[in-house]
Amino acid sequence: MSVYEKLQALNITLPAVAAPAAAYVMYAQSGNTVYLSGHLSKKDGKIWVGQLGKDITTEEAKLAARGIAVDLIATLQAACGGDLLRVKRVVKLMSLVNSTPDFTEQHLVTNGASELIGEVFGEQGKHARSAFGVAQLPLGACVEIEMIAEIE
Amino acid sequence: MSVYEKLQALNITLPAVAAPAAAYVMYAQSGNTVYLSGHLSKKDGKIWVGQLGKDITTEEAKLAARGIAVDLIATLQAACGGDLLRVKRVVKLMSLVNSTPDFTEQHLVTNGASELIGEVFGEQGKHARSAFGVAQLPLGACVEIEMIAEIE
Amino acid sequence: MSVYEKLQALNITLPAVAAPAAAYVMYAQSGNTVYLSGHLSKKDGKIWVGQLGKDITTEEAKLAARGIAVDLIATLQAACGGDLLRVKRVVKLMSLVNSTPDFTEQHLVTNGASELIGEVFGEQGKHARSAFGVAQLPLGACVEIEMIAEIE
Repeated sequence: MSVYEKLQALNITLPAVAAPAAAYVMYAQSGNTVYLSGHLSKKDGKIWVGQLGKDITTEEAKLAARGIAVDLIATLQAACGGDLLRVKRVVKLMSLVNSTPDFTEQHLVTNGASELIGEVFGEQGKHARSAFGVAQLPLGACVEIEMIAEIE
Repeated sequence: MSVYEKLQALNITLPAVAAPAAAYVMYAQSGNTVYLSGHLSKKDGKIWVGQLGKDITTEEAKLAARGIAVDLIATLQAACGGDLLRVKRVVKLMSLVNSTPDFTEQHLVTNGASELIGEVFGEQGKHARSAFGVAQLPLGACVEIEMIAEIE
Repeated sequence: MSVYEKLQALNITLPAVAAPAAAYVMYAQSGNTVYLSGHLSKKDGKIWVGQLGKDITTEEAKLAARGIAVDLIATLQAACGGDLLRVKRVVKLMSLVNSTPDFTEQHLVTNGASELIGEVFGEQGKHARSAFGVAQLPLGACVEIEMIAEIE
């Protein structure tokens, strides 16, 4: 199955590319490498607010991370001029989880994004990753994830 | 206007490249990509200390971020063998804002750097970006920013 | 001395490559660039838990960072198909130090990794770096470090 068939099988419709929250762009390309900006967690089009260990659960934030992965794929599609088949590899994710000083499941939260990317891209979705707990995020988002991808 | 004319119009004199605070170098090049180390906020040559949400305001830290951008441009100039006209693109910033657990304006702080880079580099300054709140920074700095750039 | 002679002189035996804690891979290559996932601090094969400023000292965490560097070199060797002589340059480290809001020696902790890489790789080990304090890390680890390297 192609990436688009997989998205359809997962019943995922890619959203419009999000507008940056400030003075930057959502992605920048250098050679064959595309750097995607940190994407913030959203629910019903608004920032999905919360801090792990305080007012949102690991399972909820895992869903938030999955939603960010969908948004990242939408941005990646834009970076590919509309054609995700040009993606050669999802290379790396960096996942920032809004955490109290005693929450230690950032890896489980981030799996929400990593697993979706694995489902959609298969072998080409196998990525390196760093996940860690941050003190806070812009606008109070519970998760922020950035991506590096290689395109043809 | 060239980058140098814009710096002059903004009345910016590039400083000497900062010395690293520890066992690393201020930039490393791989192919056409230059990775700049995290640069710490400074005021009058000393570390600009502070934590957002506690003892420094968003506006002050935005100025600190702008100052870091000037330092990053100085380091980038060194990476280009002294000639900023070799910069093809500022690709990405990662901005670490020293934050209490309830400060949520990391994007506004970081705009201090992003806006200056936009003013100086124009189209070539349009960069991807991640900004987030960290628990603390080396030497108590209020902001730390790293950059990835493409050079010719 | 070659990298392997230096490792021997330092009495370092590279471990087996660690298994990822979740749904990702330990490294991904794009062109000549290898991105290594964030590696967590370990002691006697288990996660080395602790938070700087609370229950672990700078000196202890510096040793933890040194241990992570050994693990990163082992992963880098795997990425090189078993031959570290293919490493052209260690380009960049990102070091996440599990910190209370008042701990400001993340750079000294991270030197444990940077210094070892300098000893082993010499000129080719001179890397850019960002180090900062995070609110928490997966499984409570005291340090997490990721690496970007260029290989031939």
